[in-house]
Amino acid sequence: MILENELIKQDWRSRKRVEIFQYIFLKWTLALLIGLLTGLVGFFNNIAVENIAGFKLLLTSNLMLKDKYFQAFAAFAGINLILAICAALLCAFIAPAAAGSGIPEVKAYLNGVDAHSILAPSTLFVKIVGSIFGVSAGFVVGKEGPMVHTGACIANLLGQGGSRKYYLTWKWLRYFKNDRDRRDLITCGAAAGVAAAFRAPVGGVLFALEEAASWWRSALLWRTFFTTAVVAVVLRSFIQFCRSGNCGLFGQGGLIMFDVNSAIPAYNTADLLAVILIGVLGGLFGCLYNYLVDKVLRTYSIINERGPAFKILLVITISLLTSSCAYGIPWFAPCTPCPSGLEKECPTIGRSGNYKNFQCQPGHYNDLASLFLNTNDDAIRNLFSSRQRNEFHISTLFIFFVAVYFLGIITYGIAVPSGLFIPVILAGASYGRLVGRLLGSISSLDVGLFALLGAASFLGGTMRMTVSLCVILLELTNDLLMLPLMMLVLLISKTVADSFNKGVYDQIVKMKGLPYMEAHAERYMRHLAAADVCSGPLITFSGVEKVGDILHALQMTRHNGFPVIDEPPFSDAPELCGLVLRSHLLVLLKGKKFTKNRVLSGSELLKFFHAFDFAKAGSGKGLKVEDLDLSEEELEMYVDLHPITNTSPYMVVETMSLAKAAVLFRELGLRHLCVVPKTPGRPPIVGILTRHDFMPEHVLGLYPQFIHHK
Amino acid sequence: MILENELIKQDWRSRKRVEIFQYIFLKWTLALLIGLLTGLVGFFNNIAVENIAGFKLLLTSNLMLKDKYFQAFAAFAGINLILAICAALLCAFIAPAAAGSGIPEVKAYLNGVDAHSILAPSTLFVKIVGSIFGVSAGFVVGKEGPMVHTGACIANLLGQGGSRKYYLTWKWLRYFKNDRDRRDLITCGAAAGVAAAFRAPVGGVLFALEEAASWWRSALLWRTFFTTAVVAVVLRSFIQFCRSGNCGLFGQGGLIMFDVNSAIPAYNTADLLAVILIGVLGGLFGCLYNYLVDKVLRTYSIINERGPAFKILLVITISLLTSSCAYGIPWFAPCTPCPSGLEKECPTIGRSGNYKNFQCQPGHYNDLASLFLNTNDDAIRNLFSSRQRNEFHISTLFIFFVAVYFLGIITYGIAVPSGLFIPVILAGASYGRLVGRLLGSISSLDVGLFALLGAASFLGGTMRMTVSLCVILLELTNDLLMLPLMMLVLLISKTVADSFNKGVYDQIVKMKGLPYMEAHAERYMRHLAAADVCSGPLITFSGVEKVGDILHALQMTRHNGFPVIDEPPFSDAPELCGLVLRSHLLVLLKGKKFTKNRVLSGSELLKFFHAFDFAKAGSGKGLKVEDLDLSEEELEMYVDLHPITNTSPYMVVETMSLAKAAVLFRELGLRHLCVVPKTPGRPPIVGILTRHDFMPEHVLGLYPQFIHHK
Repeated sequence: MILENELIKQDWRSRKRVEIFQYIFLKWTLALLIGLLTGLVGFFNNIAVENIAGFKLLLTSNLMLKDKYFQAFAAFAGINLILAICAALLCAFIAPAAAGSGIPEVKAYLNGVDAHSILAPSTLFVKIVGSIFGVSAGFVVGKEGPMVHTGACIANLLGQGGSRKYYLTWKWLRYFKNDRDRRDLITCGAAAGVAAAFRAPVGGVLFALEEAASWWRSALLWRTFFTTAVVAVVLRSFIQFCRSGNCGLFGQGGLIMFDVNSAIPAYNTADLLAVILIGVLGGLFGCLYNYLVDKVLRTYSIINERGPAFKILLVITISLLTSSCAYGIPWFAPCTPCPSGLEKECPTIGRSGNYKNFQCQPGHYNDLASLFLNTNDDAIRNLFSSRQRNEFHISTLFIFFVAVYFLGIITYGIAVPSGLFIPVILAGASYGRLVGRLLGSISSLDVGLFALLGAASFLGGTMRMTVSLCVILLELTNDLLMLPLMMLVLLISKTVADSFNKGVYDQIVKMKGLPYMEAHAERYMRHLAAADVCSGPLITFSGVEKVGDILHALQMTRHNGFPVIDEPPFSDAPELCGLVLRSHLLVLLKGKKFTKNRVLSGSELLKFFHAFDFAKAGSGKGLKVEDLDLSEEELEMYVDLHPITNTSPYMVVETMSLAKAAVLFRELGLRHLCVVPKTPGRPPIVGILTRHDFMPEHVLGLYPQFIHHK
Repeated sequence: MILENELIKQDWRSRKRVEIFQYIFLKWTLALLIGLLTGLVGFFNNIAVENIAGFKLLLTSNLMLKDKYFQAFAAFAGINLILAICAALLCAFIAPAAAGSGIPEVKAYLNGVDAHSILAPSTLFVKIVGSIFGVSAGFVVGKEGPMVHTGACIANLLGQGGSRKYYLTWKWLRYFKNDRDRRDLITCGAAAGVAAAFRAPVGGVLFALEEAASWWRSALLWRTFFTTAVVAVVLRSFIQFCRSGNCGLFGQGGLIMFDVNSAIPAYNTADLLAVILIGVLGGLFGCLYNYLVDKVLRTYSIINERGPAFKILLVITISLLTSSCAYGIPWFAPCTPCPSGLEKECPTIGRSGNYKNFQCQPGHYNDLASLFLNTNDDAIRNLFSSRQRNEFHISTLFIFFVAVYFLGIITYGIAVPSGLFIPVILAGASYGRLVGRLLGSISSLDVGLFALLGAASFLGGTMRMTVSLCVILLELTNDLLMLPLMMLVLLISKTVADSFNKGVYDQIVKMKGLPYMEAHAERYMRHLAAADVCSGPLITFSGVEKVGDILHALQMTRHNGFPVIDEPPFSDAPELCGLVLRSHLLVLLKGKKFTKNRVLSGSELLKFFHAFDFAKAGSGKGLKVEDLDLSEEELEMYVDLHPITNTSPYMVVETMSLAKAAVLFRELGLRHLCVVPKTPGRPPIVGILTRHDFMPEHVLGLYPQFIHHK
């Protein structure tokens, strides 16, 4: 969406060549900064989680070694509870927008939905700290979604220049105060988030492309690639630094990088059938997961709406339940004697590792505890490990799968930053390894590979991405020879799941009521014309309008765009001059450059105002009607709207089908679309289409006969 | 670009739900078929090349073993010449469009340029066979570009249904007879081509996205991914089959898959500096390469225009020159004693291998011959090999680099299908390995890795892709740990090269004069209005128009779209009814449903015609004005244009800046854009903008004052 009014044209004419270089330089500097900061946050997040969770797990296992089982549980559940409450307090009181994954919100923002406070600094703070607390608290949640949201928040903050105090920053960043540049920055931020969460730079770019962004340009591909490259370099340097033991309990690092390298890439027909089975089951489990998450979310949102106390109570309940499961269920598992000839010690001493002693006698380990009493990252690493085929019992895998599947479902939606990737990978990996064990006699594939394919199938079934998931998983496991199998599994599971419901992020976007514009038009839109859905009444302004009338219109409606119509004596017949934005009107009225009579005063205004005065403010930062303070006398005066009127708004003829208008609206990323009459001699504008007019709820509300037509 | 006329609306209303399923089913079936066929062709191409070139090389080395040096040269150069002449004959006489890489043409097609015969069946045939001959003939050309073109041709052929003879095929495929579906198919084809050439399915998808396609939808990502997955499976099965020795001299296979796995992924600051140096040099060499290729191409196109004989003469010259270089230069290299402790035999017996005996005594090898007297794929494999650091002398690498660099430049443009990837990788790898050898004392990185980075830097410098090259190279070498270095090199070389000139494909598109619409508007377009560049005179039709007038307009102009204006008595005042396409007018006139008087006969026409009669024909297949045979009497009759008039053409107001109109035009993928007047009371249309009106040559021709403004 490109605005063109006299102010902007004046600005463009006066723009010097050096400013263009400034702009390009700044664009790349911002991309660099986004990468640096997101990488830093990602690393900090990991250090914090590994140390907090590591401390907790060490304390618990030390107490258990001394047979103080009850104290161990108290310490475990207590620390979990405190961390959970901290996270919930932050979310409930400081930034409610920070709860959940954040990917749906970022996706909606990049689609053009300016939801309030999604990318505010407070959200950023709570997202970072809350995610650390939430993940350390042992919830079945990930840090991946929150990292994407964090990256987007960082990008937004950088693009806004942080503060208006520093004139220099403000002046330089003025070029970025528009929808397109802001969207580009946030796309970079989202890509950087994935890159930081998974250490997957290419995967990050593809995620931004496939899932997050609604519009894409080739130039953006390059910029996001640069950002994620910076993230990769930052992470690599820090991990190098931590290798020398400077990062406390960081150890192998939570920045997951699994090594399934030992698996054999050869496979036969039986293996392929097993893989297809995994894909189909993963698709089914995935769409069931989405269905249940939706139901749980709807229930939780009723609870959460009652107030912060209820939010925190819900978090406490889930925290206690999770702690009880994690500590309680392993008691039912039998002790397994340590296999001989291991490289690692068994039972595990210290924090991570595959062989948790738990309640067993020396020389034995509890395989269920190895999964439950570990960080999620370590549990996944254990499930993917290919060395010991029988390390986990079939029953263990089954119990863990069921527990994690349902814990994941009931955890998403509580007032804690919570990613969906890790729960899905956990459940998928345990189910995949289970299938691998069950089919052991038929298929010769490695159980670690089965776990990986299970995770892929489950991710495909819930998130419905393909290429980006494929690349992320490849970057995680560092084995390209698995590519064909992974592609097969992802295609199958997505196809199966798509025939039942939508992807989990789309579902959440819809549940939150965000007006997301789909890339394709619905079928029934073919049977309607653009003029059929324009929601009235249409409020128009004259080219030179009375201040009082403008104020009244701004107060009475919540429209963001108003058509401006030139009438005699300023033109021969009524003609559409263009479209004026609410935000621009507010700035104009605030300037108080009014005239006593209905005369053209545009050239005066052009001297007084500058295009940057009308630049788009950050979310929630713009002027409001209440900020205006106009005297009775001023209300009777006139103001010339021509300088701020977008004289070339996008327009369609009233008879154009709604489907065609919707595609145009979406592909150009519009906010307003003027509908003009087919025949001459009528008023020059029929109505204005906005995003809301294309929403199925609106259209089907007006034309219920199409409901079954969908 | 969506058409909406009464016929299409009627068709849409009558369309049954089952037809939508048919469409979806067919879409995926076509994607599957494209994958299958492209995979097959890719495999067949490799088998053929490996066997022909293998036979040639074996013959040569056997003759050399018997000290018959002259006969060896005669055999080598003779076979090369015969193969080259065969390829040139095909290109010169059957399908001139098959010469060159084909990627620029596919890129232009996907941008909306319907250049004649780019994707015709004859082009496909010559591309496949000619590419085999050309690569076997020892030219410094690759099969990658031709594979992309081949994939696109296959997709086009499948989408057109091959032939009108089989009614069933025709009926089912009618849904695909439009710009969008055809473009989608060809995007899939291009992705499949890359996947088949490099065995890089993800790289194929990204190539289609980053380089080939001008518009992209998320749904397309999934479909291309499916296609490339099919290609990967097909190739894998066939290679499995060939492993058992059923494919003659296929051996390791030309489907390049290099293993640089032994390289150490640890690096220090000195290594990073070396890598940055490689990036900068690669960028410089890359843009020099583009510059020289452009100059050579311009020279060759003058020669080639003189006729087929000159084309063939040029091919003969280059072939003899290449053969002389390949056979002659190794004589200057000293013999090297075979290193001890090798796994492979030295000197090499048989076709491929690192240690060619050439003129040396037993137990010695000629390292220059190992590079020159090999297929290009094997030469790259040798350059990437990391086992023997000193396998190639510094002088050898230097000589080979210079030879390949210039041979690559003078070979592109001759009348042979010739990809640019392989020459660039060859030159880049030899230069990278050379730098690695020279910096051996400073950097601890492996020379094979240096070769890989050199190839990456050179690719980045010529082709200016980033993510797709990165993924293609990763898939080729199967080592993700090199990712950060590769990203760094690509970013640097692209940045360096971009400051001098355009990417090689863009350059070729421009040189061929194809009207490619850039994604961004030029700066000077901001200073012009849409109406400023409309090229007149505007020819309009009435809603019911005289047949003779239509025919006259079709004969006199080459416009593809005409505005239709309703005038009294059919409306109160002149109003824009819509836009009618030349191709639709031709079909309408061919149908001869005329009326004696100026009356509305739309409902009659709707019964007689069906929307599919007006479906877009394949390139060069549609009706032409000459095909019409109208009597004097018929020329005096009238025809109702309403049923075939697109009643909701895209339109912009005359005062819209050209820049904004250009972005709209490009983003919606239009072919015509109506410019309407700002003020009422004038004729309802000012002009029509087409792709050509946005071309810099056209605009700067009209407004030369902006030339320095660029």
